[in-house]
Amino acid sequence: MSDYDTVSADVEHEEEIPEDHPRYQDLLTRHRIEAGVEKGITHLQGMHAEGRGSAFDYLLGEETIPSADDAERAAAAHLLLADHPVLSINGNVAALVPGEMVELAEATGADLEVNLFNRTPERIDAIVDHLREHGADEVKGLEADAHIPNLDHERSKVDADGIYEADVVLVPLEDGDRAEALDEMGKTEIVIDLNPLSRSPQVADVPIVDNIIRAVPNVTDHALELAGADEADLRTIVANFDRERALEDAEERIRSGEL
Amino acid sequence: MSDYDTVSADVEHEEEIPEDHPRYQDLLTRHRIEAGVEKGITHLQGMHAEGRGSAFDYLLGEETIPSADDAERAAAAHLLLADHPVLSINGNVAALVPGEMVELAEATGADLEVNLFNRTPERIDAIVDHLREHGADEVKGLEADAHIPNLDHERSKVDADGIYEADVVLVPLEDGDRAEALDEMGKTEIVIDLNPLSRSPQVADVPIVDNIIRAVPNVTDHALELAGADEADLRTIVANFDRERALEDAEERIRSGEL
Repeated sequence: MSDYDTVSADVEHEEEIPEDHPRYQDLLTRHRIEAGVEKGITHLQGMHAEGRGSAFDYLLGEETIPSADDAERAAAAHLLLADHPVLSINGNVAALVPGEMVELAEATGADLEVNLFNRTPERIDAIVDHLREHGADEVKGLEADAHIPNLDHERSKVDADGIYEADVVLVPLEDGDRAEALDEMGKTEIVIDLNPLSRSPQVADVPIVDNIIRAVPNVTDHALELAGADEADLRTIVANFDRERALEDAEERIRSGEL
Repeated sequence: MSDYDTVSADVEHEEEIPEDHPRYQDLLTRHRIEAGVEKGITHLQGMHAEGRGSAFDYLLGEETIPSADDAERAAAAHLLLADHPVLSINGNVAALVPGEMVELAEATGADLEVNLFNRTPERIDAIVDHLREHGADEVKGLEADAHIPNLDHERSKVDADGIYEADVVLVPLEDGDRAEALDEMGKTEIVIDLNPLSRSPQVADVPIVDNIIRAVPNVTDHALELAGADEADLRTIVANFDRERALEDAEERIRSGEL
């Protein structure tokens, strides 16, 4: 696509991308995914998925809309209320927000678990190493000693003491089949996805329609702010969140916003 | 993005993608770009650009809208009327529609010229070879003995007897800077781009807002049908084409179509 390519994201380090560039977030995102592919963290198709997401982000105005901020606050409350929250990490998530996911895990007491659509031992190891470079201590997903029901074998692998037994899971940029299968297990599911009508946000308890590079730090900020809150207050935030309205708001924004 | 990844495009040959699959075109496109990256034809960022395009195509309904068909007919008329038409080929174009571009060149008497944003001798050679495997005879772009004014050195390279002296150029999936620079040279410019508000279609004489895998064969079909037409009839088709309306129609479709 045209305007896109007029600024090269061919930089060695992301610090070379000027922060005042009008497409800074987009260039940063593209650079991180490209670096992820080169490091063996991200599947080549992740570059395609990210491009697809970037078009929806462009239509959304490349900002966190108010209903997404509400969703991010509700997500923080869910994670703080959970007995066993788990943050699921795939290749795009690891490439885009490795340090940010580690910070969110720390702020909410959640586990990190690597969970890949195109699962190979090499990619799992590369992602675990990448997360550790970004401050992660324990990372789950290596055991893969349990299965999510109703998914084919390779795609269903999870840790028995991780996603399998979690009560609240954050699954950013997740495919629809797995999002549905997790939903059917009765888990409270938080999804981050830029297309409000794709299946994952449609089945989520908390659909966050926002760019992951804005969403994850904002969930962390809400979690830090809510850390001292009463359980009753957290439950009120959760109860007041309206998932249908969040999805409708995002769709309306995509339809009416500036192209 | 979610639903996307529920069908793998990890096939060895495109014949393995079922033609009756609801996302057939999209899977085919993704597969061809991925194969292009693996063959060294397509830059990694081409995968991102294609993903971005696929989101706009999804919003357009993944079909050739009537105003795009009008644009494709006008493009055919322009190419047939031209003294020296040239079809510009970049890495995504070569990966997506190599044989289709060769057929369009034959139907209109146009030259094919390789023109890359990320220009390396290896990529040029790989693309020329790829086009020859798909039936191309002569391919320009190797000489690079002329420059488009107002573009930086590497990006401006063209053949003196190719794009430089062409009166009509088809530049599919072109970046905005080069589309503007070609426009300033006074050429009749035909652009294929899925975002009606990006700069390339905005500066084009004929903006085709359609997926290139549908657009190019359709321009060829129109050219074959118009091959015996009088010059006066071709000039009428060109004169009656309304570029503003084509852009507005596409934008309207993106805003109002089913998500």
